[in-house]
Amino acid sequence: MQMVEIISKKRDGYVLSTEEIEWVVENYTRDHIPDYQMAALLMAICWRGMDARETRDLTLAMARSGDQLAVRDIVAPVVDKHSTGGVGDKVTIAVAPLVAACGVAVGKMTGRGLGYTGGTVDKLESIEGLRVSLSREEFLHIFKTHHIVLAGQSSELAPADGKMYALRDVTGTVESVPLIAASIMSKKLAIGASHLLLDIKYGSRVSIKTVEQAYPLAQMMVDIGKLADIHTVAAITSMVQPLGRAVGNALEVAEAIAILHGTGPQDVQELCYHEAAELLVMTGSASDHAEAERRVLQAIRSGRAIEKLLEVVAAQGGNTRQIEQPALLPQAPARVMLKAPRSGYIAAIHSETIGLASMRLGAGRFEKGDQIDHRTGLVLQAKVGDYRYAGEPLIEIHARSESEAASIEAELLSAYRWSDAPVSPPPLIHDIVRP
Amino acid sequence: MQMVEIISKKRDGYVLSTEEIEWVVENYTRDHIPDYQMAALLMAICWRGMDARETRDLTLAMARSGDQLAVRDIVAPVVDKHSTGGVGDKVTIAVAPLVAACGVAVGKMTGRGLGYTGGTVDKLESIEGLRVSLSREEFLHIFKTHHIVLAGQSSELAPADGKMYALRDVTGTVESVPLIAASIMSKKLAIGASHLLLDIKYGSRVSIKTVEQAYPLAQMMVDIGKLADIHTVAAITSMVQPLGRAVGNALEVAEAIAILHGTGPQDVQELCYHEAAELLVMTGSASDHAEAERRVLQAIRSGRAIEKLLEVVAAQGGNTRQIEQPALLPQAPARVMLKAPRSGYIAAIHSETIGLASMRLGAGRFEKGDQIDHRTGLVLQAKVGDYRYAGEPLIEIHARSESEAASIEAELLSAYRWSDAPVSPPPLIHDIVRP
Repeated sequence: MQMVEIISKKRDGYVLSTEEIEWVVENYTRDHIPDYQMAALLMAICWRGMDARETRDLTLAMARSGDQLAVRDIVAPVVDKHSTGGVGDKVTIAVAPLVAACGVAVGKMTGRGLGYTGGTVDKLESIEGLRVSLSREEFLHIFKTHHIVLAGQSSELAPADGKMYALRDVTGTVESVPLIAASIMSKKLAIGASHLLLDIKYGSRVSIKTVEQAYPLAQMMVDIGKLADIHTVAAITSMVQPLGRAVGNALEVAEAIAILHGTGPQDVQELCYHEAAELLVMTGSASDHAEAERRVLQAIRSGRAIEKLLEVVAAQGGNTRQIEQPALLPQAPARVMLKAPRSGYIAAIHSETIGLASMRLGAGRFEKGDQIDHRTGLVLQAKVGDYRYAGEPLIEIHARSESEAASIEAELLSAYRWSDAPVSPPPLIHDIVRP
Repeated sequence: MQMVEIISKKRDGYVLSTEEIEWVVENYTRDHIPDYQMAALLMAICWRGMDARETRDLTLAMARSGDQLAVRDIVAPVVDKHSTGGVGDKVTIAVAPLVAACGVAVGKMTGRGLGYTGGTVDKLESIEGLRVSLSREEFLHIFKTHHIVLAGQSSELAPADGKMYALRDVTGTVESVPLIAASIMSKKLAIGASHLLLDIKYGSRVSIKTVEQAYPLAQMMVDIGKLADIHTVAAITSMVQPLGRAVGNALEVAEAIAILHGTGPQDVQELCYHEAAELLVMTGSASDHAEAERRVLQAIRSGRAIEKLLEVVAAQGGNTRQIEQPALLPQAPARVMLKAPRSGYIAAIHSETIGLASMRLGAGRFEKGDQIDHRTGLVLQAKVGDYRYAGEPLIEIHARSESEAASIEAELLSAYRWSDAPVSPPPLIHDIVRP
């Protein structure tokens, strides 16, 4: 096969064969295809797209490019979840132990953050001693014993995706529905859960600004799941304001602990209940959503949910006292309360601006390899629809110093839109796409 | 400036600024932009196109990337011509001395052939001793003295184009109207003639199969010429059969000599008259086409045209006896006359098939660096519209051996379509696009 012919075929709008796609992925992973040819093909895919069969083939080839954990062969059913990335998104840290406490195994690896949306692994590293870089054997051992692991993503998992993603990042080829879908799904297939719940957030990423843009991605991933024998459901949820109140690593762990006690902020608490219940229904562990929600609430009230978090943190060498007493989590030295500059209803809180301001405090990475400060971040004191009198608390800044806090105040205030008339926040869950 | 932002801008369909285009060409030529980013941008250009201003900016930046000869500063007017490449296209070898014999200077560098369309430089090297690789000083000296040079293209000329073309060749990004136009026009601008006649051949290249596909390219190059101050006219001509009768290097030189004696095959003889006359009118050397044609015929009949070819061949160290007696040009050892397999009118002769068969005889290159056999090729004994009885001569094969000749017979016959009813050949010149 000739790479230039495959590129030209896609350039001219034709569908690539299974053999062609497998040949490309295999040879690119082995460095037999140069980056410049792959870059041309990726741009041609941005242009012409890929149909469901092509995207499934790409996903499968990428999944097979490295280690395959096949967790469903150890325990079944086993669930996985994935979010396209949001500001203040600590859902995984709460939902994984919640579902495991309800008796359903969770096989998941989580990513590091780059850009303003943060990564679950970075958040978990706020917990003293917690080891997230696990060998294959450690991962499988903890999963077998506890039916839950909180691990970072192994570089052995879908290495074709790692290599392709690095190239896409510098060639303007990130924002393509089939390429995003294949990137996410290849890692899911390499882990090998039997059920997958996706959270497609609109209002944040460049390619998913609107609900309309979320549907093709949701539908394509559900379709790939079907073709690749992983039962996939996609929730389309709003990221038109940050999720919950905490933004920043240790602050978000503390909020996840609150959720497991049933005392989290209403929006994120309900989203966690909903996602956990959906997973119980998907796997047949509950006969309907009402029964599933009852079992989820029971797991919270009985203390089994927080117990499950303590169990997995202990198994991975983390300091469980920080889970029992979240005040022991790393604390930023400076706290500054930013006040409402005017009276009114909050009409919007721009997630990206909040996320970028939090990054400037040290809570996120501008470039790969940047060190993260787990202590810093923001705590929203009011959300869309709330009324604030001028001078009332608006957002608390957790910073390394008062001057660093002061340096982002104007930026933070620019994230808010105000209204004199009452405002209803948009529903958090817009729709569910099922196979 | 960030390359990834420029790629994304073009990917999203926006127009690039003059500064952005200049930055890309300058930094790519200096190896400051990696091939994989350039490949992504080139594919995005295939996708989104470029408008006339962008294409002019790209052309000018590429022209400025290396040596600039500015021949119009030595003699004015000075004409250049370019053909997009055809099978049996020896027009430059005849038209350049013809125009120079009429008193108009010709400043042109010609390319080597890759693929089935052949290169003028390769054809010229059939002449013993003729030096086509000239230094800048030699080129300018011969041009100043004789107002004509038959030189190969210097690698110092528009090196950005050389580097981009090599990348386009392996990334499926050759077939883009603005990229083809910029590639051709950048070299023309670097030479710096005041007038340019383009011959856009339809029916051959992938991107110019039909007349409809020829117009955008013709129009874009005429527009760039206008914006870049080079008076450009584009002829759209048919390549639905080979041009003239000879295909192959020494065979085509012999045919060009015949044209300069006024005894070439009718189609190519008339095309040469027409192009030469067009150049005289464009430069104001003749007041109208009728006067121009009269002067062209005079130059032929008086012997001044063939004298001009002898003059430039002598200046470049070539054996002029081969021009005086074309039988002294290299001759293939084996000649085999292929006969018409049936009686009928010739309805079509597929140029690409004829060109490829000629390459197999050694007359062209399958890969860069392949050696060329100047002796081999084909001589068509009949053209579209001619009637042949079965067994009459159809095409003469000039080969290294009778077995090599025999090996392409079936392929050659497959190039012919026959008709029982009379067939009119399509007009050679379809249209002229003027500024």
